[in-house]
Amino acid sequence: MSVTDDFKIIDTDVHNEQADAALVPYLPEPWRSRVAATGIGYAGSNYWSPVGVMKKDSIPPGGGKAGSDPELMIRQLIEPYQVEAALLTGVVYNISSTHDPDYAAAICSAYNDYLIAEWLGKHPAFKGLLAVSTLDPVLAAREIDRVGGHPDIVGVIISSAARSPLGHRYYHPIYEAAERNGLPLSIHPGAEGGGSSTAPTAAGYPARYIEWHTCLSQMFMSHLVSLVCEGVFVKFPQLKVVLVEGGIAWLPPLLWRLDKNYKALRSTVPWLKRLPSEYVRDHCFLTTQPIEEPANPQHLIDLFNMFDAEDMILYSSDYPHWDFDAPDMILRKLKPEARRKIFYENAKKLYRL
Amino acid sequence: MSVTDDFKIIDTDVHNEQADAALVPYLPEPWRSRVAATGIGYAGSNYWSPVGVMKKDSIPPGGGKAGSDPELMIRQLIEPYQVEAALLTGVVYNISSTHDPDYAAAICSAYNDYLIAEWLGKHPAFKGLLAVSTLDPVLAAREIDRVGGHPDIVGVIISSAARSPLGHRYYHPIYEAAERNGLPLSIHPGAEGGGSSTAPTAAGYPARYIEWHTCLSQMFMSHLVSLVCEGVFVKFPQLKVVLVEGGIAWLPPLLWRLDKNYKALRSTVPWLKRLPSEYVRDHCFLTTQPIEEPANPQHLIDLFNMFDAEDMILYSSDYPHWDFDAPDMILRKLKPEARRKIFYENAKKLYRL
Repeated sequence: MSVTDDFKIIDTDVHNEQADAALVPYLPEPWRSRVAATGIGYAGSNYWSPVGVMKKDSIPPGGGKAGSDPELMIRQLIEPYQVEAALLTGVVYNISSTHDPDYAAAICSAYNDYLIAEWLGKHPAFKGLLAVSTLDPVLAAREIDRVGGHPDIVGVIISSAARSPLGHRYYHPIYEAAERNGLPLSIHPGAEGGGSSTAPTAAGYPARYIEWHTCLSQMFMSHLVSLVCEGVFVKFPQLKVVLVEGGIAWLPPLLWRLDKNYKALRSTVPWLKRLPSEYVRDHCFLTTQPIEEPANPQHLIDLFNMFDAEDMILYSSDYPHWDFDAPDMILRKLKPEARRKIFYENAKKLYRL
Repeated sequence: MSVTDDFKIIDTDVHNEQADAALVPYLPEPWRSRVAATGIGYAGSNYWSPVGVMKKDSIPPGGGKAGSDPELMIRQLIEPYQVEAALLTGVVYNISSTHDPDYAAAICSAYNDYLIAEWLGKHPAFKGLLAVSTLDPVLAAREIDRVGGHPDIVGVIISSAARSPLGHRYYHPIYEAAERNGLPLSIHPGAEGGGSSTAPTAAGYPARYIEWHTCLSQMFMSHLVSLVCEGVFVKFPQLKVVLVEGGIAWLPPLLWRLDKNYKALRSTVPWLKRLPSEYVRDHCFLTTQPIEEPANPQHLIDLFNMFDAEDMILYSSDYPHWDFDAPDMILRKLKPEARRKIFYENAKKLYRL
């Protein structure tokens, strides 16, 4: 069944989760002993989802973590939906919410080696995003240079849970290295409020998962405003940023507010030579899952028409997470030309696939 | 000049600022000596606006703080724009970002007595919102009962800068008292990130005012999601909440996301019997200033048509702040019936004026 009629799909957020033990062979000491003894020890957000986090049918028949079996992923996702490229995003970007920058860097390096050895090459659709921690941007830049040249590594992924807005100069070595290696940078949520990362909402810690999940978009709003205002896209003019899993519909209202403020307050951001929204249009992408679903689906289409949506949005399934969006279930009201861009062409061009 | 042709205006956010010394006569010891010696000592957000915070022409000719002279306010705002009611919001709600709950309560009580003695009654248009601090909700409730019955006190105002999302049960005595006194509750920004309040954005502290101001809406998103999910509008079915100066256009995308999540995750908020957006529609209002200004003004109107905007929006000028919105400058593309509701009828009904 082709859900897109005359074009294949590029899925920009596919979680190849793995058992903690899978990384042990790739770790140096003392981290090898640590993970072997007590697991990775992510600092999770500590919000509980009553529907679970994983699609139950994505657990391998022989047991193990959902998303950990390449063969099952091929049968459940790649083949039925004619996925030409599945960007493997893993989960280890979440390590940025812990405390030790050397440990976090080691976990990411181990994952990147595991990704190359045990996923890439197993199917032509598998492409990898190399993971780095934001706890030491210089180490992160070194890791990007170490594995960024692999032919099936097509991007970098970091966590949106962080200790400060991602535009801050502290993070710039990551952007410099991503640009140098020609790799788009994905920013992904997951451990917001965990460990040493900031509270998950501007007002602090809400009580439960529904609030935490609803407010995740705020993290992306904050990072985007910071990236633009700090001049990251002026300093790194080839850098492309993909805001993954943070929603889309909040973008036009935010940019209206930011552009208006820029007109009055531009003297404090003199490096910006154009409206903030123009930098966002030229440098940023957003992924579809979880897509907003107004009671009247036309409202989302109308809102898309208020910005350059069809050139800025990338399809993502978030497989194997609970709120997985199958390609045939969303954006059915879009015109064929826009669907083709969002499901395929934008990512093809961005990732040079 | 009537800017609204055939109806007067109700302005729901007018800042009658006062010199710190003006509160001294209304304070008990030891606070009287403290303020006399060192001023109120607000914990400000510490972001600097290059255009200032106050309209320069609102400083009284004889000197003093912008907005501190009732006669000048009458000449600059009330008379030229035919303002039937100006809801005086003061600035002391900002005291909630400091540390001592007794001091904060004393400052609010002194302000409320000052407001009644020195503003209310000076012009028929002057109506007051009594200020309370969120640092001790039981003291706040007592203050609402103390002055809430004054005939020209029409509402309660608190700060949006707080230590946690405003739906938390800790705050409920405030909502109970507001409901008991039939007073709508306004939530106003200003000291986000100052003192003991949370960071001003979900990602922490941005570098400058343009980012801080752009991201202020996040505080309102967080509080609104918390108020709804904690069941505040179920527990206090007569409570009305006014989100002041936090923007408007973000509301539809947020409610789409919250309603969608509710459908999957409702088991953790079993007290909600309807969609979250329905509680918001029935209990919440938003004020106009600062209004979002898309490059194509029709986009804002189109977005208003995606929710019950004309019944939920209240006009506010934010006089005498730098980004003051004169009534004749905004929302000119709205239909006359919607303008009449937003500039006049909604507030008239809400505040029983």
